Amino acid sequence: MAHVTNPKAEEILDKEFKCLNAGFVRLVDYMGGDESVVQAARVSYGKGTKSVSEDRILLRYLMRHLHTTPFEMVELKFHVKLPIFVARQWIRHRTANVNELSGRYSIMKDEFYVPSPGVIKMQSVRNKQGRADDEVSPELQQKVLSMLLEEQNRAYDTYEQLLNDEIARELARINLPLSLYTEWYWKIDLHNLMHFLQLRMDKHAQYEIRIYAEMMREIVRRVAPMAWEAFEDYVFYGERFSKAELKVIADHIDMQKITKEYLEKYNLKGLEADEFLEKLKKLKS
Amino acid sequence: MAHVTNPKAEEILDKEFKCLNAGFVRLVDYMGGDESVVQAARVSYGKGTKSVSEDRILLRYLMRHLHTTPFEMVELKFHVKLPIFVARQWIRHRTANVNELSGRYSIMKDEFYVPSPGVIKMQSVRNKQGRADDEVSPELQQKVLSMLLEEQNRAYDTYEQLLNDEIARELARINLPLSLYTEWYWKIDLHNLMHFLQLRMDKHAQYEIRIYAEMMREIVRRVAPMAWEAFEDYVFYGERFSKAELKVIADHIDMQKITKEYLEKYNLKGLEADEFLEKLKKLKS
Amino acid sequence: MAHVTNPKAEEILDKEFKCLNAGFVRLVDYMGGDESVVQAARVSYGKGTKSVSEDRILLRYLMRHLHTTPFEMVELKFHVKLPIFVARQWIRHRTANVNELSGRYSIMKDEFYVPSPGVIKMQSVRNKQGRADDEVSPELQQKVLSMLLEEQNRAYDTYEQLLNDEIARELARINLPLSLYTEWYWKIDLHNLMHFLQLRMDKHAQYEIRIYAEMMREIVRRVAPMAWEAFEDYVFYGERFSKAELKVIADHIDMQKITKEYLEKYNLKGLEADEFLEKLKKLKS
Amino acid sequence: MAHVTNPKAEEILDKEFKCLNAGFVRLVDYMGGDESVVQAARVSYGKGTKSVSEDRILLRYLMRHLHTTPFEMVELKFHVKLPIFVARQWIRHRTANVNELSGRYSIMKDEFYVPSPGVIKMQSVRNKQGRADDEVSPELQQKVLSMLLEEQNRAYDTYEQLLNDEIARELARINLPLSLYTEWYWKIDLHNLMHFLQLRMDKHAQYEIRIYAEMMREIVRRVAPMAWEAFEDYVFYGERFSKAELKVIADHIDMQKITKEYLEKYNLKGLEADEFLEKLKKLKS
Repeated sequence: MAHVTNPKAEEILDKEFKCLNAGFVRLVDYMGGDESVVQAARVSYGKGTKSVSEDRILLRYLMRHLHTTPFEMVELKFHVKLPIFVARQWIRHRTANVNELSGRYSIMKDEFYVPSPGVIKMQSVRNKQGRADDEVSPELQQKVLSMLLEEQNRAYDTYEQLLNDEIARELARINLPLSLYTEWYWKIDLHNLMHFLQLRMDKHAQYEIRIYAEMMREIVRRVAPMAWEAFEDYVFYGERFSKAELKVIADHIDMQKITKEYLEKYNLKGLEADEFLEKLKKLKS
Repeated sequence: MAHVTNPKAEEILDKEFKCLNAGFVRLVDYMGGDESVVQAARVSYGKGTKSVSEDRILLRYLMRHLHTTPFEMVELKFHVKLPIFVARQWIRHRTANVNELSGRYSIMKDEFYVPSPGVIKMQSVRNKQGRADDEVSPELQQKVLSMLLEEQNRAYDTYEQLLNDEIARELARINLPLSLYTEWYWKIDLHNLMHFLQLRMDKHAQYEIRIYAEMMREIVRRVAPMAWEAFEDYVFYGERFSKAELKVIADHIDMQKITKEYLEKYNLKGLEADEFLEKLKKLKS
Repeated sequence: MAHVTNPKAEEILDKEFKCLNAGFVRLVDYMGGDESVVQAARVSYGKGTKSVSEDRILLRYLMRHLHTTPFEMVELKFHVKLPIFVARQWIRHRTANVNELSGRYSIMKDEFYVPSPGVIKMQSVRNKQGRADDEVSPELQQKVLSMLLEEQNRAYDTYEQLLNDEIARELARINLPLSLYTEWYWKIDLHNLMHFLQLRMDKHAQYEIRIYAEMMREIVRRVAPMAWEAFEDYVFYGERFSKAELKVIADHIDMQKITKEYLEKYNLKGLEADEFLEKLKKLKS
Repeated sequence: MAHVTNPKAEEILDKEFKCLNAGFVRLVDYMGGDESVVQAARVSYGKGTKSVSEDRILLRYLMRHLHTTPFEMVELKFHVKLPIFVARQWIRHRTANVNELSGRYSIMKDEFYVPSPGVIKMQSVRNKQGRADDEVSPELQQKVLSMLLEEQNRAYDTYEQLLNDEIARELARINLPLSLYTEWYWKIDLHNLMHFLQLRMDKHAQYEIRIYAEMMREIVRRVAPMAWEAFEDYVFYGERFSKAELKVIADHIDMQKITKEYLEKYNLKGLEADEFLEKLKKLKS
C-alpha cells in the first residue's frame, strides 16, 4: 500500500483560497484519508481491509460512538494568512503544531483586515459577545470604515518611521494593530480539526474566524469525504439535550408510532435504528 | 484569598477507598473547586466575585455551552492501586500526569485481581467487546475462579524463582499476568477528569474500570459539587441525537404545548428555557 | 498527610508583583512542592518517606537524569496582566491552561505598555531577532516614546468613538495595538513551568517577557526551593555541547588530575562525581 | 509543490522490519521531510526556498538552538507489533496518536516474547533498574528459557479453555502475561519522535524497547536525513554538563590554543565556531 491520497484533495493541494480582504487558506500537505481511519480502527479487530461500503459503515459507527482515536490518524497541514485578532482566537486550540511569522525577525507588511461594509454591525444586546443582526446605515458603515483605514495607515506610518530610525523591530511593532495580517503553518489531526471547526463554524464564533473555518470545511471534505459526512450527520448537525430537556422530549414521543419501518422513512436503518430505539426507551423509562 | 478548599473534600483527603478485591483510590491533594471555575471564567468578563447563587448560574451556563477552559483550573491528584489491564485502558487518556510503580526497580507484590463470582460472565453475542447479562452457573464461576487463582499462583512462583536465581527484575517480570496490581499517582484537571469519567462510567466500559470511575465520581462531587451537578445535568445524563434522529423528534414535538409556563414544570426556567425553545424551533424549521 | 504547602509561598500568595509599567504576576493558588515531587518519585520504588536530606538527594538525582514526570505533580496557577505582544509569545507554550480576558465581551481599559526610556534600543545587526546593546541617545528615546504614546492615545480614542457609536465590541477592538494590556489566569505544572522559564529567561528572549519570567522564578523558588535549586544547577546554569565541541573539550581535559579528591573541591561528590568521571571517560575514548 | 517525499523512505514504505523474536516495525505513511522543516522555519523569516546547502545550514541552526517547532511539521505513522511490557513503557510518551489491538474485541494470538539466550542477564547491583553486563551460564539461560516458555504455554492454555467455556474475552484475557505480543498504529511528529528515540535508544532503556528504537532510527534517517544528522550531532551524541561540572571543564580549557583555525580541525566553522567560543568565554568568566 502506498500513501493514501484523494484525487479531490490533490486537485486543490497548494492552492490559495481567499478569506476576508487579504487572507487565505492553503492546504500544504496531508497524510491519509477515509481509508486511514478505517485501517487504524481495524487494528482493534485484527481484521483486513473491506469494501468501500463497509468502510463507510465502520466510519459512521466510529463517529456515532465517539471512538475518536482512528480520526487522529489523518493529518492536515495548512498555510494561513489571517488578522492577528483571528490568530489569537485560533491559537487557543492547543492540539496543533504552529510556525508563525515573527515580527521580531521580519518587517511586517502593510496589510490589514478591512471589513466589507455589510459586516459592520452594532453590539448585540442579547448576546454579550457578538454583533446584532440589524443592518447598519451606509453612513455609519462608511464612517467606521474611514476610521479604521485612517488608524491603520497612521499606525503603519509610525512603524515605518521607527524602522527608519533603526529602532529594534521587536519594539517598533508593539503599536501595530490587531487587524494586521500575520501568517502561519498550522498542522493538526483530523479529529482535532473537526473539533476546531465545530467551535469555529458555530454561529457564536466571530464572523471573521468563521470565514476561515468554512473554507477549511471544503478542504477537509476533499481529504476525507466519508469522515466529514459522518461528522456532519452525527455531530455538527446533531444536537445535545440536557436531562431536563430529555424529559420534555420523552413526554412528546409516541413510541407506538416509532417502529423500524417508520424509522426507515427517516433513513434510520439497521444498527443505527436499534440504537435510536434504545435511546428513546431509556428516555421513556 | 487563600487556597480554595472544600470541607467535604478535606474530610476524605488521603483516605483509601477500596476498589475491587485489593485496589483503592485515594485523593492525595487537590487545588481549587467550584469557586476557582467561577473565578477563572470571570476574568473574561472583568467582573468581581458574586453570590453563591450567581456562581451556580454561571457554572451551569459554562457547562451547558461547553466553555470548558474554566473547569481546567481545578486540579486533582489521586493515588490508585489497580490491575494492569485496567491501567492499560486508563493510560489511554493522555491529558494527565502519571508516576507508576516500576517493575524494573521494584519487586512486585503477590497481589492479583480476582473477580467476585457474580461478575464472571459469558461473552456477549450482541456486544463484541463486552459481557453478556445472563447469570453464569455457580459451577462455571467456581471453575473459572480456580483456573484464575491457580494461574496467578504459578506465575508468581515462577517470578520468585527467577528472582531467587538473581535474574534481572526487568526480565523476571515479563510473564506476570495482566491481573497483577500496580500503583500510580495520577493528576488531572477537572475538565479532563469529567471527560474520563464520562467514558469510563459508561455502560460500555469494562466493569473493572467502571468501579474506579464510580468511586472517583464520589470524590469529585466533594471537591466541586456544583460543577459535578452541572456535568450530570447537561452532559452525563444528557443525550446527543443525530441529524436524522432530530427529524423524528421534531415530528413528535407539539410546539403549541411547549410554553414557558409548561417548561417550568420541568424545572426549565429563564435563559435555559429560552435556549431550549430556540433549539426546538430550529428542529421544526 | 494534609495539603503540601510552603510557608514562603503562603507569604506571597495572592500578592501582585509589578512587571513593566502596568503589568503584574500573582500566584493565585498552587498544589504541592518539593515533598510532592519526592512522594511521586517514591511510588516507583515502593518506599516510604525519608528525611529532608535524602529528599534533596533524590530530587537532584531526578533532575540530573531528566526524570521529569515527578515534577509534573506540582501545579501553579498565576494571574497575569501583560501586553498582548507578550501574551502572543507566552501562549505558544501549549501545556498550560488559560482563561483570558475577552475583547468580545469586555470593554478593554486604556492601559498600554510604555517602555522605560532605557530599554529603547536599536535593531541588533548580529542578532536578527533582537536589540543592540548600545545606548540610544536621550533625544531618540524621547522621540520614540512620544510616537508610541501618541499612537496609543489615538488608537484608544478611535476605540471609544466606535463604542460610542455602539459598534460591536468584537469589531471596535480590531485596531487596538499589540501594546494593550490583557489579563489571564494561567495554570501549569512545575516541569513545564521550568521549561517555560528556561526559554523565557534566556538572553535571546524579548526583554519584556523576560521581566515576567524573572518575577515568576522568585515565586517558584518559594513553592519548590529544592527543585528550583536543582534546576538551576543542572539545567539552567548548565550547558550542552555538540559531538564536535566535545572532541575539543576532550583534548583539553587532563584525566590524571581529575580524581575524586580533586572533584570534591568543586563540590562534586558521591554518585554525582562518579557520573561525571564516567562522562569524561566516554569523551576521551 | 506536491507532497514532500524521500525516495529512500518510499523504498521501505510498508515493509516490516523484524524486532525481537516475533515483533516488527513498519512505516505505514509519512508526511514531509527535511524540506518541510525548512519550509515551516522560513515562514518566520518571510523568505522563499533556498538551495539544499542553505537548507542544511538552517536545519542545523534550528536544532542547535532548540527551535523545535519546525520539526513538528513532519509526521510519521508506524505499525508496530510489540510485547505488552514494552508497550507499557512506550505509551508513557503522551504526544502521539495510538490505536491498539483490543483484547476485549479480539482473540489474542499465541505469540509471546521469548528472549534470545544471550540477553538473559542477572540483576545489576549498581543500576537498580537494569541488567548486569556479565554473561550468564548457558545452563541458567536454558533454565530461565524453559521456565518462561512453560509459563507462556500454560497461560495460553488457560486462556483457550476460558474461551472454550465462552467466558467473556475481556475477562478471559486477564491472566495473559506481559510478554504477550500486541499491535498498534502509532503516529507522531518528528520532534517528539526524536525525543522518544533519545530516551529509548539510551543505554538505560530496557534492551527490548531499545531494539525498536534503533530500528526506527534507520527509518527516520530515510525520511529526514539532514534533520537526523543534526539531531545526532547536537543532541544525541552531545552531552550536558552541570554548573559544577562546567567549572572543572573551564579550569582545563586553554583558551590560548583555541582559535578559529584550531577549531576548523574539529570541523567547527563559521557561526558554529563563534557560538562555541562564546560558550567557552562564558565558562572562563
